[in-house]
Amino acid sequence: MSDLSPFLIPRGFRFAAAKAGVKASGRADFALIVADAPASAAAAFTANRVTAAPLVVDKEHLRATGGKVRVVAVNAGNANCAVGQAGLDAARATCAAAAQAFHCRAEEVFPSSTGVIGVPLPAEKLIAALPEIAAALSSESDRFMEAAQAILTTDTIEKTAFARLDVSASGELQEVRIAAFGKGAGMIHPQLVPHATMLVYIFTDAAIEPAHLQAYLNQAIERSFNRISVDGDTSTNDTVLLLASGASRVTIGANDAAFAAALNQVCTSLARQIVADGEGITHVVELRINGAANDADALHVAKAIAHSPLVKTAWAGCDPNWGRLMAAIGYSGAEIDPERIDISFGTLPICRNGGRAPGFDEAAAHKYIEQPEFSISIQLNQGSGSCVFWTTDLTVQYIHINADYST
Amino acid sequence: MSDLSPFLIPRGFRFAAAKAGVKASGRADFALIVADAPASAAAAFTANRVTAAPLVVDKEHLRATGGKVRVVAVNAGNANCAVGQAGLDAARATCAAAAQAFHCRAEEVFPSSTGVIGVPLPAEKLIAALPEIAAALSSESDRFMEAAQAILTTDTIEKTAFARLDVSASGELQEVRIAAFGKGAGMIHPQLVPHATMLVYIFTDAAIEPAHLQAYLNQAIERSFNRISVDGDTSTNDTVLLLASGASRVTIGANDAAFAAALNQVCTSLARQIVADGEGITHVVELRINGAANDADALHVAKAIAHSPLVKTAWAGCDPNWGRLMAAIGYSGAEIDPERIDISFGTLPICRNGGRAPGFDEAAAHKYIEQPEFSISIQLNQGSGSCVFWTTDLTVQYIHINADYST
Repeated sequence: MSDLSPFLIPRGFRFAAAKAGVKASGRADFALIVADAPASAAAAFTANRVTAAPLVVDKEHLRATGGKVRVVAVNAGNANCAVGQAGLDAARATCAAAAQAFHCRAEEVFPSSTGVIGVPLPAEKLIAALPEIAAALSSESDRFMEAAQAILTTDTIEKTAFARLDVSASGELQEVRIAAFGKGAGMIHPQLVPHATMLVYIFTDAAIEPAHLQAYLNQAIERSFNRISVDGDTSTNDTVLLLASGASRVTIGANDAAFAAALNQVCTSLARQIVADGEGITHVVELRINGAANDADALHVAKAIAHSPLVKTAWAGCDPNWGRLMAAIGYSGAEIDPERIDISFGTLPICRNGGRAPGFDEAAAHKYIEQPEFSISIQLNQGSGSCVFWTTDLTVQYIHINADYST
Repeated sequence: MSDLSPFLIPRGFRFAAAKAGVKASGRADFALIVADAPASAAAAFTANRVTAAPLVVDKEHLRATGGKVRVVAVNAGNANCAVGQAGLDAARATCAAAAQAFHCRAEEVFPSSTGVIGVPLPAEKLIAALPEIAAALSSESDRFMEAAQAILTTDTIEKTAFARLDVSASGELQEVRIAAFGKGAGMIHPQLVPHATMLVYIFTDAAIEPAHLQAYLNQAIERSFNRISVDGDTSTNDTVLLLASGASRVTIGANDAAFAAALNQVCTSLARQIVADGEGITHVVELRINGAANDADALHVAKAIAHSPLVKTAWAGCDPNWGRLMAAIGYSGAEIDPERIDISFGTLPICRNGGRAPGFDEAAAHKYIEQPEFSISIQLNQGSGSCVFWTTDLTVQYIHINADYST
């Protein structure tokens, strides 16, 4: 955070974190965000049919309040998933205690959890930490960063993104702020409905009706969080929450292109940070699929490549093995003609018309994909469908992290 | 091979292998199987839309001959895929030379290739090896095993399976033999149409019409090769070929349960051998999915689990992390109710009604999955759909093998 940070945090919110004792490591594991007044809320949850207890409670609460949130309570270290009724009880007990502490309705509390699945969440530890965390609440950027750190699991670094825009209101320019933090390094292939254990919390001090807020969130998600994959595993807990406090006194209506662009920028930045901190990764790869029969086909091709262990291990070895790309394109289910496929690494020609490109330079290709971030373009020459997708390599370190995680 | 081996090789076929110089290692890389007379043929090829040149030629040849094959020519070390017209030319040149050497039509030659994709196949090396390999042809089991070895790539061991059955013909029992060899260790998630770089060659000395032969092959494939996955990557070259020489003078018609059962046994044995030799694997896992809404849903659940890096790395770590199984079931697309899911490791209760089973014993579960082969049963309690599927863990060694393979 730069010295500008005090001017980046949206007004109307306070943040804090505590060590509740859920993480075995003893690190901070409980983050609380409190809105000064009920904030407009828009949310998106995992498409996984096995969903964690807090997500069930969140949906009930948003329905009950018509999209208003006062308190966000996030624990790391335990996903509160696949523990039956005990999970719902733990989430509701946390909400009830937070409601009492902050003088709001239990339905105005939005709980989130991330961590191991299938182990009962000790809600009593979260509840016991509430007085300490309440005393620490502040709108300062330091507290914001502490909250961003407390929700991490296998992440190696906190993920934050900020945007400001000037909106003409009442004849003069008024500032609107957007700030977000998120977590996620493994089990990353968010498929949010209207489409993340990716957890993302986005805050703005604009005044926006919940319905408009949801529309802004849906379009931003579609080209950010729903366009990334580390390992192809879609979590049971993925959640993106966007809160608007209105504390800027600037009202944003529907279809505000500047606000949409600022929100997209924040979401894309966080999505890329999540990929860049993917478990054990050594390369971030941008896939640019063009010329697909339609956008859905472009996404099928991107996901087949992003989920191919053979492609991902080749990247780990800096091996320009484009044959594995061809194989993945072939089984993607997309409408293709192998003889019309062109592949480039950056601007280097690799494959033309389904065969080795005349100018193919293996040494140059190898050198190009030694870079920590690189881009692969695939032209299918079928139509005008396209997508941009971000993914990672698959390394020995990923295996170590995940073969030794829970027990 | 035991001392019984001379009595296991189906009559009417001769086998040989040679070092043609395609494999960089200098090992045997060219196998030839010659039928004494045109054999009835049934075949199944990859569903990947990028298909290797030999598969294109194979389909043409089988159409031209109405399902008759004299010579099977298999090279390892080069997949002859994604090389454009040069690939077709190389496959056809090999067929023409083999046809001349063995006095048959070029259309009666069935070429196969496995190895690196995107590098032109040096057909001249295969053609130059034909005289040596022709001189070595024999119906002895030693030659059969040499052919089985020559087609290997990253495999650590040859894969063979045998069956014999006694068929009542002309009032007396006559012996019919089935023998098969195959290869495959990575890029293993065969989706053969009527549904393998798995290559499998099955030989029988029964007399069977090509149409009946194809029907037998289709049903055998569906519950063997199409029920395995090492890494979820469906190859461009997968091929299963079943040849019937008729040399036993026993005719098998349609719907012969004993022949079907013997063929199924051979295919299932080879499929399991391929999984057991999966690249870098330390565990073979049998997934038994029951109570699905239908068989297709059962298969969706099995494949989601088999392709989940998080599940596979947990197995590598002997970690009974059933939460990752629940997550994979949840995103499989199958119709499920999380609260009705039961999971067992062998006979150990792990999960009941979507939560930790009352009798869950983590130490026992850990010990159970330390075994090199173990079984996981999932009961969805939705309907009567089921499947059995074989897969593997994902290890550091898999990454090493595939990060350093081609260049």
